[in-house]
Amino acid sequence: MKNTFGQSVCVTVFGESHGQAIGAVIDGLAPGITVDNDFIASQLTKRRPKSSIDTSRQEKDEYSILSGVFEGKTTGTPIAIVIPNENTRSKDYSKIRCLARPSHADYSAYCKYHGYEDYRGGGHFSGRITAAIVAAGAIVMKALNEKGIKIGTHILKCAGISDSAFSNIENEIDALSKKDFPTISDIEDKITEKILEAKLQKDSVGGILQTAIIGMPAGVGEPIFDSVESVISHALFSVGAIKGIEFGSGFSMADMLGSEANDQLEIKDGKIVTKTNHNGGINGGITNSMPIIFNCVVKPTPSIAKEQDTVNFINNKNEKITIEGRHDPAIVRRACVVVESMCALCIADMLAQRFGTDYLGGK
Amino acid sequence: MKNTFGQSVCVTVFGESHGQAIGAVIDGLAPGITVDNDFIASQLTKRRPKSSIDTSRQEKDEYSILSGVFEGKTTGTPIAIVIPNENTRSKDYSKIRCLARPSHADYSAYCKYHGYEDYRGGGHFSGRITAAIVAAGAIVMKALNEKGIKIGTHILKCAGISDSAFSNIENEIDALSKKDFPTISDIEDKITEKILEAKLQKDSVGGILQTAIIGMPAGVGEPIFDSVESVISHALFSVGAIKGIEFGSGFSMADMLGSEANDQLEIKDGKIVTKTNHNGGINGGITNSMPIIFNCVVKPTPSIAKEQDTVNFINNKNEKITIEGRHDPAIVRRACVVVESMCALCIADMLAQRFGTDYLGGK
Amino acid sequence: MKNTFGQSVCVTVFGESHGQAIGAVIDGLAPGITVDNDFIASQLTKRRPKSSIDTSRQEKDEYSILSGVFEGKTTGTPIAIVIPNENTRSKDYSKIRCLARPSHADYSAYCKYHGYEDYRGGGHFSGRITAAIVAAGAIVMKALNEKGIKIGTHILKCAGISDSAFSNIENEIDALSKKDFPTISDIEDKITEKILEAKLQKDSVGGILQTAIIGMPAGVGEPIFDSVESVISHALFSVGAIKGIEFGSGFSMADMLGSEANDQLEIKDGKIVTKTNHNGGINGGITNSMPIIFNCVVKPTPSIAKEQDTVNFINNKNEKITIEGRHDPAIVRRACVVVESMCALCIADMLAQRFGTDYLGGK
Amino acid sequence: MKNTFGQSVCVTVFGESHGQAIGAVIDGLAPGITVDNDFIASQLTKRRPKSSIDTSRQEKDEYSILSGVFEGKTTGTPIAIVIPNENTRSKDYSKIRCLARPSHADYSAYCKYHGYEDYRGGGHFSGRITAAIVAAGAIVMKALNEKGIKIGTHILKCAGISDSAFSNIENEIDALSKKDFPTISDIEDKITEKILEAKLQKDSVGGILQTAIIGMPAGVGEPIFDSVESVISHALFSVGAIKGIEFGSGFSMADMLGSEANDQLEIKDGKIVTKTNHNGGINGGITNSMPIIFNCVVKPTPSIAKEQDTVNFINNKNEKITIEGRHDPAIVRRACVVVESMCALCIADMLAQRFGTDYLGGK
Repeated sequence: MKNTFGQSVCVTVFGESHGQAIGAVIDGLAPGITVDNDFIASQLTKRRPKSSIDTSRQEKDEYSILSGVFEGKTTGTPIAIVIPNENTRSKDYSKIRCLARPSHADYSAYCKYHGYEDYRGGGHFSGRITAAIVAAGAIVMKALNEKGIKIGTHILKCAGISDSAFSNIENEIDALSKKDFPTISDIEDKITEKILEAKLQKDSVGGILQTAIIGMPAGVGEPIFDSVESVISHALFSVGAIKGIEFGSGFSMADMLGSEANDQLEIKDGKIVTKTNHNGGINGGITNSMPIIFNCVVKPTPSIAKEQDTVNFINNKNEKITIEGRHDPAIVRRACVVVESMCALCIADMLAQRFGTDYLGGK
Repeated sequence: MKNTFGQSVCVTVFGESHGQAIGAVIDGLAPGITVDNDFIASQLTKRRPKSSIDTSRQEKDEYSILSGVFEGKTTGTPIAIVIPNENTRSKDYSKIRCLARPSHADYSAYCKYHGYEDYRGGGHFSGRITAAIVAAGAIVMKALNEKGIKIGTHILKCAGISDSAFSNIENEIDALSKKDFPTISDIEDKITEKILEAKLQKDSVGGILQTAIIGMPAGVGEPIFDSVESVISHALFSVGAIKGIEFGSGFSMADMLGSEANDQLEIKDGKIVTKTNHNGGINGGITNSMPIIFNCVVKPTPSIAKEQDTVNFINNKNEKITIEGRHDPAIVRRACVVVESMCALCIADMLAQRFGTDYLGGK
Repeated sequence: MKNTFGQSVCVTVFGESHGQAIGAVIDGLAPGITVDNDFIASQLTKRRPKSSIDTSRQEKDEYSILSGVFEGKTTGTPIAIVIPNENTRSKDYSKIRCLARPSHADYSAYCKYHGYEDYRGGGHFSGRITAAIVAAGAIVMKALNEKGIKIGTHILKCAGISDSAFSNIENEIDALSKKDFPTISDIEDKITEKILEAKLQKDSVGGILQTAIIGMPAGVGEPIFDSVESVISHALFSVGAIKGIEFGSGFSMADMLGSEANDQLEIKDGKIVTKTNHNGGINGGITNSMPIIFNCVVKPTPSIAKEQDTVNFINNKNEKITIEGRHDPAIVRRACVVVESMCALCIADMLAQRFGTDYLGGK
Repeated sequence: MKNTFGQSVCVTVFGESHGQAIGAVIDGLAPGITVDNDFIASQLTKRRPKSSIDTSRQEKDEYSILSGVFEGKTTGTPIAIVIPNENTRSKDYSKIRCLARPSHADYSAYCKYHGYEDYRGGGHFSGRITAAIVAAGAIVMKALNEKGIKIGTHILKCAGISDSAFSNIENEIDALSKKDFPTISDIEDKITEKILEAKLQKDSVGGILQTAIIGMPAGVGEPIFDSVESVISHALFSVGAIKGIEFGSGFSMADMLGSEANDQLEIKDGKIVTKTNHNGGINGGITNSMPIIFNCVVKPTPSIAKEQDTVNFINNKNEKITIEGRHDPAIVRRACVVVESMCALCIADMLAQRFGTDYLGGK
C-alpha cells in the first residue's frame, strides 16, 4: 500500500526532504499507552547527525503530535506526528536536476513520476523521512517495553571493522539503548577513523547492522505470507539504503549441514528453548520465543563528492557529476535507530493481529 | 494478509501436506492470457522430486483449474487451481506428534494453533504447498514472457560448490529454463556427489539461489513501503526454507566504498543504463530498467535421519528424535522454480498496479 | 481486493455458473472451531431452489472441504471449500451471447473483460457463487453461536406483502432458523401466490430483507473507515441483487426530528441499553451492544421470459431478447441465508480484529 | 483498515474535534495533477457553517499542504493536508463527560477505547473530521473533471420538503456546483424555515441526499467484493450521520416487477445506453457508462438542546442530559460536499486500479 504499512497497527508516512514537513500517522495503536516525549526526543537524537562523520545538515526535529494523544496517553485513534523541515538548501540540488546521481532514485523516480517528483534533496526518497518513522516507532517501543519486549540494534560491521555479535542479549540491548554510537565492543574510534578517511577521499562507507528482539511470546506471525521474516523484511527494505537482510545465521547456513544448522531443543528452567538460534527465533514464519535476530546490510551512502559518470536523463547525454551539498560519509550509525523503530512498528502490528487491538494498551 | 498476497494481482494458497488437496486462487489477473497447460506441467515437473538427491515421495501433481479460464484463456475472474495430495504416509509422523522436529515449525505452530494444527508432514508449513505457487506462477510467467519479461533462477552455491554468477543474462535464463538441474556452469555432478555424501551421513545441505529478472520497464514499484525489494522479499520469506535475501551486490556492499558500490550511468545504444549493477536494478524501491538481481539462501533441509535432541512440547520433557519418512537431503534444486514462480506473481502484481488491470492481458 | 474480503478473517471466492466448480477459501479463522457438516448442509439447503417459486436448476451442492479442517475442527490455516457445478445447460446461453440481458452484468462485464469473460449463465456474476459464501458462512456462524451471537434474516416485504418487523428478536431468530420460508408472520402462502402470479406473466418480483444480529459485545468496529455499517454494506453489495441497505430506522429517519430519532439510554437489569434502536445497534461505527438491525432491498430477478429491448453489444445493433433457461421469479427467499452468511463472515472478522485471532476458537 | 481507505488511491484521516488539528494524507494519486487552491477553499466553504441553520462554531479551515505538491502539481507521493482547529470551547463538553449523548458515539467509543478517547466535542467521531475529507476530495475532484467525470449532490429531501430528482444531470451538476444551498428546485426558503422551526423547538432534522456521477467509462469496478456499490457505500458509511444508501431506484425496486425494474438497452447516437437507469449505472458491481446515481439518508443531528434521558456510563446511573454547545439543527446542507468528496476519492481509486497509477495525472 505504497506509504501505509501494517494490518492492525499501521503507519502512513509522508514528506519530502526539502518540503514543508515530514510526518507519520500511526493508526490502530491501543488506547492508554503513555506517550513519553523525552523518549521520543532521545530516539530522534540518535538519528540526528552529531559529529564529523555525519552530514552537517542540522534539524531540530521538533515534532508536533497533532492528534490521537489525550492527557498524555494514546486514545486509540490515529496519531499524526509532524516534523517541520528546516535548514534546507535547495540550491544545492537545482543545478543537478537532470543528472542522475549514481545509486540514487533520481532516474527511477523520474521514470515513475514523469518529472513531477520533488527532486530536491532526494525528495520523498530522502533518508530525511526516516525521522518520522523514528518518532512513530518511539511511541510503540515504549509500549513494547511495558510488555517485556526489547529491541536493540548495533553496528556489526562498518568500514571493515567488526563488532562482537549479540551474546548476552538483554544486557547488550540495555547498554546499546544508552549509546550514541551503538556497538557492543569498544570500536567506535576505529570505525570513526575509517569513516573520516573515506570522507577525506570524498568517498563513503557502508556496513552491517545486527538487531535482536527479546521477550516475544511464541506463536506470533501470520504465515504463510505474513511470516515474521516477511513482515520485517518488507518494512526494512522500505529504508532506501538497505539491500539485504538475513535472519539467524542467514547466508552462512548455505555452508552448514542440516545437523549443524538445526536448532536442537531442550527444557531449560522449565521452558522450551533451542540450544542454538540459527533460525533467529522464527520457525515456519512464527516466533518460537527465542530472540529474533537479523542482520541487514546498509550500502555506502551514494552521495559522494568524487566526480562520477552519469547521464542527463532529460536530454539523454553522458555527463560528469560532482555531488555537492552536505552528506554523510556513513549512515550506519544513524540507521540503527531507524531499523529498531521499523521493527517496533512491525512487532506491534503482529501482536495486535494476534492478541487484539487492546493488547499493547492501558487495558 | 496471512495466505493472500498481492494488491492488484493476488494469490491465495491453501492446503496441508497430508490433507485432501493443496491449491491456489489467483485473482486480478488480466483477461485474455493464454493458459498453457504444457508449460504449467513442465514447471511442476521442475519442482517434483526426480532423483536420488530428492525425497522419494512421488506426487503426480495433476492439477485441475476449477475457474477463471474459459476457452483456453484467462477470464479476468479468480483462477482456482487444485492439486490433490496422493502418496501420503501419515503414519510416518504420528509417532513424533509431540516431538518438535528441530528447525521445523512443529513447536511454533503448536503455540499458535494450540494443537489443532494438522501436524502430519508439516501440515500447512510443508514445502508441498509450493506446488500450488508453481502452478499459479506458471500462468503468470507466460504472460510476462509475452511482454518481454523473463525470470531465471540458478543454484549459485550448494554444499560448498559455487556456480558462475549471471553475466550474459538473457541467454543464461533461456538455457536454465530447459534444465532439470539449474546451474550456469557444469557443476551438477559435483553438487550431486556432495549431496549424496550428506545423505549417506543422514544429513542434509543448503545453498544459495540467484535470480535475475530482465525486461522490466523502469519506473515500477510503489515506495516507500511497497518498494520492489519489499514486495519480493515479503513473498520469498513465505517460503519456509529461505532465511536471507540480498539484492544486487547485497551484503558484499558492506565492504565497498561508495565509489565502488555506486552504479555510474551512461547512454548505451541510445538507452540509459548503469555500468555496474550493484543495486540489482532497483533504486529507491523503483526499477531502473537494469536486470533485477537477487540472491536468497536456502537453509539445509531440517528433516534429517540423524538422532537429535528435542523436547516433547506437550509434556515438557527432553527427548531424542530420529526423523523417519522420505526427505530431501537438499531442496535447492527444487526451490529454484518456486522462487521464480513467487517472483512472477510479484512482478505481475507490480505491473498491474502501475499500468492497470489489463496490462498483461489480451487487450 | 476484488474476490477476497476481510482483514483478519478473510474469505476468497471463485467460480462461474457453468464452470467446473465454485468455492471459497476462509483464512484467519481461529483454530479449534467444530465444523458441523449437518449445519453446513442445512444452510445450503436453505439457499437451494425447492419449489415452483424457484428456478428448476437443481444442484446437490455436495461440497468438499479440501484443507484447514483436521479431526473435525478448524486448524487455523485456510479452509478451502469446493462445490462442483452440475446440471448446467450452457446451450441456453450461447444463443444470446452478444445480447445484453437487461439489468444483468453482461454488457458491463464485457467492457471490463473484453469478451474473455465466461458468459454462460452469468459466469462469475451468477448467484450460483453465493453457495460458496453460504458454506463458508455456516462454519463461521456456528462459532458465533458458541459465543452467544445469533444472526437471523427474514423477508420483510415481497411482492407487496409485508412481514412483521423484528420485535422479540431472539425468539424470532430461533424460529427463523428452522424455516424454509423465513418470515415472522404467517404470510408464506400470500407471497407464494403473488410470485406465481408474476411467474405466469413471465415476470419476477423483488423484496426487502431484514436482518438482526444479537449478542454482539459493545465496542466492536474500526472507524472511521471500517465502521460496522461500512463493513456490512461493503460485503452485502457484493451480492448482485442488492441495491440498497439501511441500518436501524434508515431512510425513515429523514422524516424524524432529532428528538424522535435519538435513542435515549437507560439502565435496565443493570445494563446500559437504549430505549429505542433507531441507530440499529451502532453509534459512530461501533457496536453499542443493542441488536444490529438492517434492511436490504433485493431487486426483482432480472431474468424474465418476457420479450425485452436490448442491444447486441458486439455489433452495436438494437435487438429483442427473450430469456429462456431456468430462472427464479423471486430470489428473496433464497437470498436470506446468503445475507446471513455474509454477515457472519463480517462479524467474525470484526471480532477477530478486536479481540485477536483466537477469539472464536477452541482456546 | 480503520482510518485508511482505498487500494490504489488511498486516504488516511486523523484528528479530533478539539485537538490541535485534523488532516488527511492522500497516497497513490497520479503525478502532475494541478492543485487548485481556490477550488479547495471553495469546497471547504461549502462545508462550513454559514447561517442560522448551522452551528455557530466558526473555523477558517486554513489548511496547509505539507507534502506531495511541488510547483503547483502533485508529485505522486503522499499529500498531507493539515487543518488546525480553532475556536474550540472544550468546557462545553467536560461537564457531560460521563453522560452518553443519545445517538452519539460517546458510549460505544468508551467501550472500545476504555475512557482514553478524547471525548471533547465527539473527538475523532466529530463531523469536524470531514473537513479533511473535503480538502482531499477537492484535489481529486479537479483531476476527475479534467477526465470529463463530474459529481454532484443535492438535498433530495429535508424536513419534509422534497427536491426534484436529477433529470438533466450535467446541467444540474454544473448549477449545483455554484450553489451554497444545493437543491435543484427553488426550495431553499421552505427548507430553511422548517429547520429554524425545529431549532426553535430545541430539535433537529435530517434528510436525504442524492448524488450523480457522470462521465464514468464502462467496465470500472472490481467485483465481487469491490463492486462500485461496495466501495462507495463503505466510504459513505464512514460519515457518522449516514444510516442508509440506495443505488438507482433502490428500495423502491421492492415494489416493482422485473419488467418494470429492468433497464432495457438501446443504441442512441451510436452508443449503448439504457432507457431507464433503475440500476444507477452499475450492473454486477461494474459501471455500464450510465450515470451512477445513489441516495443516502442523513439522520437528524443528534445534538439537540431538548432534555433527554441518558445514563452515566461510568457509574451506571440513569441521568438527564441537556446538550449545550453550538450545534447544527440540520447538517444536510453541509453534508452534500462531504458526500461528493468521499465519492471523488472512491472513483479516483477505482480508476487507478483499472487503468494504472498515471491515469488521472499529467502524463
